[in-house]
Amino acid sequence: MKDAIETHIPTYDDVLAAHARIAPYIHRTPVLTSQFMNELTGADLFFKCENFQKAGAFKVRGACNAVFGLSDDVAAKGVATHSSGNHALSLSYAAGRRGIPCHVVMPRTAPEAKKAAVRGYGGIITECEPSTTSREAVFAEVHARTGADFVHPYNDPRVIAGQATCSRELMEQVEGLEAVIAPIGGGGMVSGCCLTLSNIAPHVKIYAAEPEQADDAYRSFKAGHIIADDAPNTIADGLKVPLKENTWHFVSHHVTDILTASEQEIIDAMKLTWERMKIVMEPSCAVPLATIIKNPDVFRGKRVGVIVTGGNVDLDKLPWM
Amino acid sequence: MKDAIETHIPTYDDVLAAHARIAPYIHRTPVLTSQFMNELTGADLFFKCENFQKAGAFKVRGACNAVFGLSDDVAAKGVATHSSGNHALSLSYAAGRRGIPCHVVMPRTAPEAKKAAVRGYGGIITECEPSTTSREAVFAEVHARTGADFVHPYNDPRVIAGQATCSRELMEQVEGLEAVIAPIGGGGMVSGCCLTLSNIAPHVKIYAAEPEQADDAYRSFKAGHIIADDAPNTIADGLKVPLKENTWHFVSHHVTDILTASEQEIIDAMKLTWERMKIVMEPSCAVPLATIIKNPDVFRGKRVGVIVTGGNVDLDKLPWM
Repeated sequence: MKDAIETHIPTYDDVLAAHARIAPYIHRTPVLTSQFMNELTGADLFFKCENFQKAGAFKVRGACNAVFGLSDDVAAKGVATHSSGNHALSLSYAAGRRGIPCHVVMPRTAPEAKKAAVRGYGGIITECEPSTTSREAVFAEVHARTGADFVHPYNDPRVIAGQATCSRELMEQVEGLEAVIAPIGGGGMVSGCCLTLSNIAPHVKIYAAEPEQADDAYRSFKAGHIIADDAPNTIADGLKVPLKENTWHFVSHHVTDILTASEQEIIDAMKLTWERMKIVMEPSCAVPLATIIKNPDVFRGKRVGVIVTGGNVDLDKLPWM
Repeated sequence: MKDAIETHIPTYDDVLAAHARIAPYIHRTPVLTSQFMNELTGADLFFKCENFQKAGAFKVRGACNAVFGLSDDVAAKGVATHSSGNHALSLSYAAGRRGIPCHVVMPRTAPEAKKAAVRGYGGIITECEPSTTSREAVFAEVHARTGADFVHPYNDPRVIAGQATCSRELMEQVEGLEAVIAPIGGGGMVSGCCLTLSNIAPHVKIYAAEPEQADDAYRSFKAGHIIADDAPNTIADGLKVPLKENTWHFVSHHVTDILTASEQEIIDAMKLTWERMKIVMEPSCAVPLATIIKNPDVFRGKRVGVIVTGGNVDLDKLPWM
């Protein structure tokens, strides 16, 4: 049993292999700074802009690592997943680049812009109800019917190794980082940060930021074991999913703290970023900044990397409208 | 008379002096590309992102050149201007950096976000009606009362030389450009492009893009003399002002063509850019892309620089809301 679990935990060698494998299909995204944000928070913030990533989100890193690591035999049946949006988009993009089918189970409540984009990349959508229970039931049917390779949006070691390439780039782009903060839903990006930083920069603190209204990771972290909500409700729609065993491994071993923000704090931070930094990003990406503004003593005077995870927003349904 | 006019036309030496003078106060803004936009238009588009510029717009280049070129005696009385928004913001920023007062006459209909930002930089606002006539009358009173140095938003040679630094950077950042396109209102940015490109890259074609509903530059270009509208109406609020003699000099001598787009075409291009490129930009900035989409034969197969002029948008009044 011990061996079986260990095979699911990716290593830093897996990260290096992933980075070489996915490099032709992803952007090395820019790092932006803002004098306004630095003065507001008292910290030196370095925004790693995965909203400019292919398919509009960091998730293309993990998706490409999974898709391009498949043998030709397995790849022929395609890939399948369930996702709140960006993983669906990213897996469709990756499958399209390899020329294989991609089956996606998505909540019927997902933003129209994301559904249209999935179809634009050639993804085949089956809709489910917006709960973890429904999602898993509908997915089991699709998976059994197609025989496609299941690429979990975050609990898959190939996906975690792929996401870990983001913080590897960030460490190359910014010197002297003292902390990194990323939003946490299922924990794929945070696990990737843990995997990279615990290997190449173990002195860098790792913070996860979560909506108060979907704070299962926060409560899990405090309790010492996974606590999952079914169907939490937050504007940060990418962060509604619970931790799983592989991401819990990283979160429980390497995260310094998990900080939370209210819906209004998230919306205010999102609007402020659009206004002052002139970038389009999802509500999920605003959670880290919201928690930095809320907890100035934690970050003041520090050089902090902030992962801006994605930019796929339904512009007809902005949260301040 | 000939000599008097010639002293108002800046030279490329003025551009080089301006660039050295303003460098400490501005950003060298990035150039972004988009595979989606290239496939859509059939051209290779290079977006020069002045929406990421200090004070949120290219106008800070001309404003800084004017403010930091003043003698201490003149500077002591401050600077003054009238502006539809971004020049007001930029001059306030520049004056603030030099520690001198900045008096601004703004239309009462200007976006609230712009007024708040002017005040945030320390600018002193006097409101006028949204017409060229009212603007000039109110400004005359403010100017007489304060004795401040008048920095016209675009007809000032110091301003034109400052704006010209943008296309100088673009030519350093992108090899082999065959055309540059920028929005045209009063013609400050387009004149800057003409000044730079006619000196260092005279083979590069220069296009100006204008809203159909504020097409005075288009009609002037076709007629061969300045035609001005009083109070034109367009969503591209930065482009409502008419050409003046100094900008007309450059436009009439060096512009290849002026292309126009409807309000809906501008809004569609703006929303598409936000969705696919994940950048916040003003309606004015969408006019060039709208005209490229509308005139594919002009740009297909060419390497085209697109000036994204600014990102100061009232997020509570987006045109597709």
